[in-house]
Amino acid sequence: MKTKVLWGKDLAQEVIQRVASQIKVLKTTVGRMPGLAVVLVGNDPPSQIYVSHKTRACERAGIRSLGHHLSSHTTMEEILYLIQRLNTQEEVDGILVQLPLPPHLNQSKILGSIDPNKDVDGFHPYNMGKLSLGEESIAPCTPKGVMALLDYYGIPVEGREVVVVGASNIVGKPLALMLVNRMATVTICHIMTKDLAIHTQRAEIVFTATGVPHLVKRDMVREGAIIVDIGISRKQGKIVGDADFQGLQGWARAITPVPGGVGPMTVAMLMENTLQAFRMRARTR
Amino acid sequence: MKTKVLWGKDLAQEVIQRVASQIKVLKTTVGRMPGLAVVLVGNDPPSQIYVSHKTRACERAGIRSLGHHLSSHTTMEEILYLIQRLNTQEEVDGILVQLPLPPHLNQSKILGSIDPNKDVDGFHPYNMGKLSLGEESIAPCTPKGVMALLDYYGIPVEGREVVVVGASNIVGKPLALMLVNRMATVTICHIMTKDLAIHTQRAEIVFTATGVPHLVKRDMVREGAIIVDIGISRKQGKIVGDADFQGLQGWARAITPVPGGVGPMTVAMLMENTLQAFRMRARTR
Repeated sequence: MKTKVLWGKDLAQEVIQRVASQIKVLKTTVGRMPGLAVVLVGNDPPSQIYVSHKTRACERAGIRSLGHHLSSHTTMEEILYLIQRLNTQEEVDGILVQLPLPPHLNQSKILGSIDPNKDVDGFHPYNMGKLSLGEESIAPCTPKGVMALLDYYGIPVEGREVVVVGASNIVGKPLALMLVNRMATVTICHIMTKDLAIHTQRAEIVFTATGVPHLVKRDMVREGAIIVDIGISRKQGKIVGDADFQGLQGWARAITPVPGGVGPMTVAMLMENTLQAFRMRARTR
Repeated sequence: MKTKVLWGKDLAQEVIQRVASQIKVLKTTVGRMPGLAVVLVGNDPPSQIYVSHKTRACERAGIRSLGHHLSSHTTMEEILYLIQRLNTQEEVDGILVQLPLPPHLNQSKILGSIDPNKDVDGFHPYNMGKLSLGEESIAPCTPKGVMALLDYYGIPVEGREVVVVGASNIVGKPLALMLVNRMATVTICHIMTKDLAIHTQRAEIVFTATGVPHLVKRDMVREGAIIVDIGISRKQGKIVGDADFQGLQGWARAITPVPGGVGPMTVAMLMENTLQAFRMRARTR
């Protein structure tokens, strides 16, 4: 079996271009371009890289990015005050707080303080709840990007047996909810799952988001399975995913590469979400 | 194997008594008893029965129930106006809109209009989102009652293989989220699942909430499984659950009966949620 590589890079470019052309039209009626506030606390190097990817995507999409780089000693009061200001600031349509935050900050309280209409990461309880209820509003970028990738490659999930490995708030749980909402039969596995392989071997599509390098190997999935690799970690200085990409060649029907698969889709969905927030605000004025 | 029957009736009474004694203390400091507004639209007979159960439980718990019985021709405007009034009414701590609503009403919009702090059914997107994020605030009564029942009988779920049959917004999905938050390995099945039995046969605990009488039979579960029956339907004039209670005797390790299992727990959790809302409001004044 020849394994199809599900690239996200080109699709992500397409999405960003589509967002850009929609913004071009919309900004003439609104009278300004959309604005995305990007809040970065501290000096975590991967976070700095992610933020620079997002800022570059904004340029291509025609979104004004407003960087707020705060010291790692920033207090809760200071960050909540900043978010309150961004919530009311007219030219700010989206607010993104880059995760992870330094451990002294209450992440849940910070994310919950963002105006749900400006919550372009989709992590506010209100938006997460809308997703749970199958009434997707602004949805988290990574799972949304995964669904867009599947749609692009014509991979339906309805009625299919799928397994999600990893149950985080930002990927695993919202992804599982999206899959249930689309009527897949979904199993959610995680660190406490006794025998991961019996689940992954059953799945027609395996979604993996653990950050454990090469966790998903050939002997863990059935022949012809589709592997969506949402993991990202470093191994000997190289960026690798959760799946053993080489070992799955000729065995899996399709696989997303890391890098170049789901990653770029996440950034593209952030642009889509910012456009969505811009449009919602334009409508309610 | 002798099958243990997991009754909810007595535990529900205990919970209601505990709520009653906590309210007794609290009302002396707050200066009034908690109030639960119960909104019933139309004349659906099962809904009327449920409402009467809830009203009677309120009496036992020391909660003032304020009934609002509206005609089946009530418009969206009228019901939204009522909810706005209840949201601001000082003596109303909880607002319950009995489901299902007549089809001309937009259920999602109505539930979303309830003040999340008074949303004792836990169906508001904000509360559903808190649950998704593992930060349970006011949680839906039926899945919460299921978890309380498991706790009472000393049945842990962490690391266990569980299957939820039914993916509704009010039972299946919130229950699956609670189970994932407690680190069970959870499979969510529903009408589009191709082969239900291969999943239920794998499970250490089967939760079923479909309303299909006697869907879960002996040959569909492994010996020694625990069956939590959340279904309720009528068969030849009798109330029956999703599980073949008789057929599972001597095969399942434990099973909840219908009626008398999960049902009374739902009502008890509504009392708990109303107390919780009362307490939250007492604190913020």
